Amino acid sequence: MPTDTANSFGEFDLIERYFSRHKTPDLSEQNSAEGSINFLLGVGDDCALLSPPMLGDVLAVTTDMLVEGRHFLPGADPEKLAHKCLAVNLSDLAAMGAKPIAFTLSLALPKINEPWLEKFSNGLYALADTYHCKLIGGDTTSGPLTISITAFGEVNPREALRRSGAVANDDIWISNVVGDARLALGHLRGEWPLKPEVLKRTQARMDTPTARVALGLALRQVANSAIDISDGLLGDLRHILKASKLNAQVLIDDVPVSKDLADSSLELKRLCSLKGGDDYELCFTAPEFNREIIEGISKSLDIKLTRIGKVTSATDTFGNIELFDGDKQLLDKELTSRYLGSFDHFKRN
Amino acid sequence: MPTDTANSFGEFDLIERYFSRHKTPDLSEQNSAEGSINFLLGVGDDCALLSPPMLGDVLAVTTDMLVEGRHFLPGADPEKLAHKCLAVNLSDLAAMGAKPIAFTLSLALPKINEPWLEKFSNGLYALADTYHCKLIGGDTTSGPLTISITAFGEVNPREALRRSGAVANDDIWISNVVGDARLALGHLRGEWPLKPEVLKRTQARMDTPTARVALGLALRQVANSAIDISDGLLGDLRHILKASKLNAQVLIDDVPVSKDLADSSLELKRLCSLKGGDDYELCFTAPEFNREIIEGISKSLDIKLTRIGKVTSATDTFGNIELFDGDKQLLDKELTSRYLGSFDHFKRN
Repeated sequence: MPTDTANSFGEFDLIERYFSRHKTPDLSEQNSAEGSINFLLGVGDDCALLSPPMLGDVLAVTTDMLVEGRHFLPGADPEKLAHKCLAVNLSDLAAMGAKPIAFTLSLALPKINEPWLEKFSNGLYALADTYHCKLIGGDTTSGPLTISITAFGEVNPREALRRSGAVANDDIWISNVVGDARLALGHLRGEWPLKPEVLKRTQARMDTPTARVALGLALRQVANSAIDISDGLLGDLRHILKASKLNAQVLIDDVPVSKDLADSSLELKRLCSLKGGDDYELCFTAPEFNREIIEGISKSLDIKLTRIGKVTSATDTFGNIELFDGDKQLLDKELTSRYLGSFDHFKRN
Repeated sequence: MPTDTANSFGEFDLIERYFSRHKTPDLSEQNSAEGSINFLLGVGDDCALLSPPMLGDVLAVTTDMLVEGRHFLPGADPEKLAHKCLAVNLSDLAAMGAKPIAFTLSLALPKINEPWLEKFSNGLYALADTYHCKLIGGDTTSGPLTISITAFGEVNPREALRRSGAVANDDIWISNVVGDARLALGHLRGEWPLKPEVLKRTQARMDTPTARVALGLALRQVANSAIDISDGLLGDLRHILKASKLNAQVLIDDVPVSKDLADSSLELKRLCSLKGGDDYELCFTAPEFNREIIEGISKSLDIKLTRIGKVTSATDTFGNIELFDGDKQLLDKELTSRYLGSFDHFKRN
């Protein structure tokens, strides 16, 4: 609904003041057919113009929307919030093996709050600049706090890490540790109490996740498939299995966790690591003969990479995961179904 | 905030059921270096893959977020709402002279409502298919009803219609008529009453605007600059003038309006046509020697195109607009400032 009255601090000022750092001069005369990434227009026209990536590469496009009260708590620190919103998109690019190049931002705000915007903008650019990822366009409006980012990366389509690329007998790998974000969330929700120092460490993992961009790039000719863990390890792994029409076996007590989570009860450790979302680690599958290469990547990037199971062939049905405990015993149906429930954005709490 | 409990009708089902019509097979083996537009992956992986447009072209990228209660009324018809959300993005592409090729959708919904989703999906695909514009990715979540679309088009960067391209002595043109959306809104807000048949016609313009895609394409070697009228004619024209560092003179009573608006009082006609947003007509500037070509475009596309003023040179300041009435008399300062206030998304009503 349009309004027809002016305001001393409006949408255009907002964009200009807080979101124009990557604004570029109008380079209409430059030769854009060379294949390098060029931003002909940044924030400030009807559209941004994005020239094609390297010859042979394609653009990877992903979009994520974060809503207050759903994806983050009211009163969340704006700097961390901005980091997270961009990080979850960069994580999708990483899971595709794509190199981040640019993004757009749509922002609904309940009111103009300059200190908030300043911090949000700082958090956004801090992460964006780390990856030379440019803010090329956006939209701001009033409304319940909602942040929608669409991010662009470049990748050779033959090297892209697709969910559909898994092969029977692939190893299943996971980066770093999982479950900390869920452990912190449980405390914030009153499900279990954490010691202050544990909360601090695990909440940092929830609030400012690391997108595994370098890992995604390194895995491009090594992994057969990949996904980032946003909704829970087993649920996300199942997306790979469904897309690849395969099944899997997972050694659930081999799933790597932090010392904080390892110190919890077995049940809590399993629930958080298998079903907890918001970790943004990469789960990928790769042939056995790439184990040494993957261990080399782990060393060179200083990221722990752990094998947690195998992809198995499918006969009648696919997308099934058999869970084994630390004694290599198959879990019973009840426990299996308990752990296989995935994070769902529409579940009311 | 992740949840760790499953739901029988979750995000993934939603996407699969309502937003997968443009899903494409995994074409990793196809040769994508040919230059034609290819969608390697549609909805359903971490990212969509979008291959480069025609050699020499660039991608035009635009994003718009619509929030219930701000951009549309609670209870808005979902089919029309979907149309409008996509149309406003297509309108930005049109204003750049870009050909629509694809878009992503992020959708926050207060609850799962299948009939609503069915209608929303129908409205979305009906418009998308008109322009062969593919839904290639998205995100759904629970939250206050919010729709964020990022749309992609292709354009040769030398032909793109930039806001910064206006030249002194350019004619200022406008497509079709403006002000109807504002006229309807005034009735809905209780500012003035409209006859039922007038409300019906003008509200249709507000609810289901037409993106001037074909016009934008036709103007690519004809106009020097263009913008779509989303926030009000004069405010949007001022964006062209600021970007081009120029001024303008506008004959406000030459601004084309519908018969419904022409039948209103002079004051209402002026307010709606000059300041009313949500029209999505194109305002563009072009050299005088292109008048015949533009009249030809008008005929061939069957869209009224009207000259409403001139771009003028700037000395000290730019972005100024002088307004003249039907007797070619300069309006006084008070009236001028009354009409020059632009729609602002942050003004509280």
